[in-house]
Amino acid sequence: MVGSNTSTRAASPNGNGHPPRSSSIPPSSSSADKTKAENAALAAGIPSQLSGSETYSLLALAVACATVLGNTVRRDDGAPLTASLALSGIAFSACYAMIRWLSPTFVRAGIKGADLNKAQRRTLPECMGAVCAVVYLLAVIVFIPMPFYKDIVAATSGGGNRDVVLPVAHVEQGRLLHRFPHSKLASFLSAIISLQSITLLGIGDDLFDIRWRHKFFIPAFAAIPLLVVYFVDFGVTSVVVPTPLQPYLGELVHLGPLYYLYMTAVAIFSPNSINILAGINGIEVAQSVVIALLLIFNDALYLLAGPYPHPATDSHLFSLYFLLPFLGVSLALLAHNWFPARVFVGDTYCYFAGMVFVVVSILGHFSKTLILLLLPQIANFVYSAPQIFGLVPCPRHRMPRFNARTGLLEPSVTVWLPDRQPRKPIAWALRVLARLHLLRLTTDPKDPNIIQETTNMTLLNLWLVWRGPMREGRLAAEIVVMQAFVGLFGLFVRHRLALLIFKEDNLGTTNY
Amino acid sequence: MVGSNTSTRAASPNGNGHPPRSSSIPPSSSSADKTKAENAALAAGIPSQLSGSETYSLLALAVACATVLGNTVRRDDGAPLTASLALSGIAFSACYAMIRWLSPTFVRAGIKGADLNKAQRRTLPECMGAVCAVVYLLAVIVFIPMPFYKDIVAATSGGGNRDVVLPVAHVEQGRLLHRFPHSKLASFLSAIISLQSITLLGIGDDLFDIRWRHKFFIPAFAAIPLLVVYFVDFGVTSVVVPTPLQPYLGELVHLGPLYYLYMTAVAIFSPNSINILAGINGIEVAQSVVIALLLIFNDALYLLAGPYPHPATDSHLFSLYFLLPFLGVSLALLAHNWFPARVFVGDTYCYFAGMVFVVVSILGHFSKTLILLLLPQIANFVYSAPQIFGLVPCPRHRMPRFNARTGLLEPSVTVWLPDRQPRKPIAWALRVLARLHLLRLTTDPKDPNIIQETTNMTLLNLWLVWRGPMREGRLAAEIVVMQAFVGLFGLFVRHRLALLIFKEDNLGTTNY
Repeated sequence: MVGSNTSTRAASPNGNGHPPRSSSIPPSSSSADKTKAENAALAAGIPSQLSGSETYSLLALAVACATVLGNTVRRDDGAPLTASLALSGIAFSACYAMIRWLSPTFVRAGIKGADLNKAQRRTLPECMGAVCAVVYLLAVIVFIPMPFYKDIVAATSGGGNRDVVLPVAHVEQGRLLHRFPHSKLASFLSAIISLQSITLLGIGDDLFDIRWRHKFFIPAFAAIPLLVVYFVDFGVTSVVVPTPLQPYLGELVHLGPLYYLYMTAVAIFSPNSINILAGINGIEVAQSVVIALLLIFNDALYLLAGPYPHPATDSHLFSLYFLLPFLGVSLALLAHNWFPARVFVGDTYCYFAGMVFVVVSILGHFSKTLILLLLPQIANFVYSAPQIFGLVPCPRHRMPRFNARTGLLEPSVTVWLPDRQPRKPIAWALRVLARLHLLRLTTDPKDPNIIQETTNMTLLNLWLVWRGPMREGRLAAEIVVMQAFVGLFGLFVRHRLALLIFKEDNLGTTNY
Repeated sequence: MVGSNTSTRAASPNGNGHPPRSSSIPPSSSSADKTKAENAALAAGIPSQLSGSETYSLLALAVACATVLGNTVRRDDGAPLTASLALSGIAFSACYAMIRWLSPTFVRAGIKGADLNKAQRRTLPECMGAVCAVVYLLAVIVFIPMPFYKDIVAATSGGGNRDVVLPVAHVEQGRLLHRFPHSKLASFLSAIISLQSITLLGIGDDLFDIRWRHKFFIPAFAAIPLLVVYFVDFGVTSVVVPTPLQPYLGELVHLGPLYYLYMTAVAIFSPNSINILAGINGIEVAQSVVIALLLIFNDALYLLAGPYPHPATDSHLFSLYFLLPFLGVSLALLAHNWFPARVFVGDTYCYFAGMVFVVVSILGHFSKTLILLLLPQIANFVYSAPQIFGLVPCPRHRMPRFNARTGLLEPSVTVWLPDRQPRKPIAWALRVLARLHLLRLTTDPKDPNIIQETTNMTLLNLWLVWRGPMREGRLAAEIVVMQAFVGLFGLFVRHRLALLIFKEDNLGTTNY
């Protein structure tokens, strides 16, 4: 199917600069003819308008969601979860339309890039993650009053005072006498500040092409608001000790400043790890969508399966309030970024997505669960480390190589010239990796001691080494399915096997 | 002095692309030779490095401020005002250096513009306000814990709980039993979110050149977080009624939703009004610096002259925490943007500055004072209205016109062709304005009924009509001095003459 790409190069019926209308979301198109026509259209320009059916569907969705939202807000209890779902639908529609409308604006402003893995080099708008992020932030900001609506109504004695002291019956265990949950509001706001910071810095990165060494620390800056408010407002820095170690360390270990270091590490790792597992159409958004779905599944477990009200209920509601709109805008972006992509997401999206996960997991106290869900990213990072840290030469692009003849992706390689062979220990390690099927290594047919090339060390290339050449869309799909299975297994480990090393599963008790 | 500009056009000793080192801040340079050399250097490229003396001065300032900051934080009471001052010094140094270092990066990324009011068209980096804003936001975020340090230490019973109920002696009047000032924290955070939003949207505006009709409402979006948190956390929507009206309306009027409309109007007006009084080197930043200084002076009046502790003390401390770092980054920008400018500030800066004023005045409950300080901007807006709303044709640029022969700025004009004369009422109004010396109107010497040209309706052009042609730097300086005098008079009115229509001056009582 992709092979037909090459034959459409000459034909460019829409070459008049008028943006073609695209009739459907790319991933759903399957017939070869349609793909052919679509590729030609894509080559001609950037789609900038919604088709009639798209307009009506998006409008219908937005109106339905707005109605639900209106009804929810009018009721006394606010029902924030329903409101959040409705807002996420609106965010999806808004983001979908905005991406379409703003695509030509981005290209005109020079924010664009070439899609290297296609027979025809197409110029696509870059940094569309920024549109996502802005729509998302607006949705979350508008949502602020909803989880607090009940409290606003209950706790106001008039004149804006929040000083009503409720009768003892209303005082919940462990809560303050003063009922308005100000500290929850502060976490909510600090999360928004962190997400806005990462968006700002991500846009800076996309505009200015910051060096790898420097941009690695961008998420640390964005984590500052989160950590600062955590310090002001919670200050919980203790961690439950696994049962076998409790005789030595006690039940809880107070990590103090180390805990902030740990949170910073998570905040740096999560966005960067998503940014590293990238390079083919759709992979950045699709993996983020899967992680978000798994986190939502985990939240639902607590809310549906656990006792109610549970001390962790609030944490997981909080997490849902941030994840649902994220899912909304991400799906809208995925519809445009899935193979064959019509827009690029930019580093902005990767950072932003990673930071959403950091925010919900740190403020919800389930950062260890997040780490489990990021296992493929961690594997990719560890596997990439020799190239990232310069032990093995690292070309500018390490993404899979497009073979124009077959239309399939093949692993990209690092070439070793006969006079620039790897040093002894490196060569030995490369051969061991190749023996373990963790690398493809080609030696000179005349002299097996001379290494000619090794595949670049990314999960995507390794997958192609294992599974053979395949087309771009299929590779993204397979990686995403793998991500989903690993994540589900991670959650299973977390909730079932955790009992082996911790006294109780967190589904029944406070979650650290 | 500016006349010498023209003679340096041919000489371009630094035309090798190597960025010249500039030896001093432009406004302080006065000798003609120096200006000549500097203009030539400026024409050759964008300064990108700090001179030796600049490096040492900035480093010394930063180290001194960091030392003060370190000492302050180590003390128990935090002394947040000292910390804020120290942080502002660091912010100045950081911003000054970053503007210099990032200038070539911005130009390379295509974020640049031509300086039209010079004999030599120079290309300068645009949107440097974004650098300012990011440095500012980082400073303010790092500052978050400081005003709350005392509370953190006092109100923690361990394990991150903030549930200590203090003995009655410590309970201040009108405060909650629970001492930790969560609602103050929430206002602080909402202010940051609003400022980040305006920065994001401002950058979008600078990148994509949004149409005037649309961009007018950008600040309204950025005000949403502020209003939402105001709604959740204060909900005070009453206004003190002037004494003569009290028999009819009562002492306080509860405006309810109208108050939110009022706040939105202030939030839209303030950033836009600064964005309109623009077009010559340094004017945007200089006017903002003057307004910030006047607001700081007003805060100081409350803190030094009023009784202590005063119910409004916190509001004005809050205002200082946001204004001092703003002054820091703005002065760093002014040093590069004052005539002859080496960088442009972009709409980002205007919006950002206006929003800082909105944030402090709304959360500090002195939005009426802000309006007094914006009188020149209001005058400019009202005077511009006929052109903004299309009654009089509005060219793309209305800034004063540079006369290359004299090196001076002259009022720019709207030309009326004999066959496209203004309609009767417009023509009559234009003649009345000309009679009142509020416009310069040129008629056809043969037929006084035919209007040939009228000056564009901005304060800058009007000033040139009144005072005659002058060089760009002088015009900016005169406008800024006028701004300062009007502002001081406004504050005088506010604190002295307010007694005529209100029972008490707010220096002694709660400030609405």
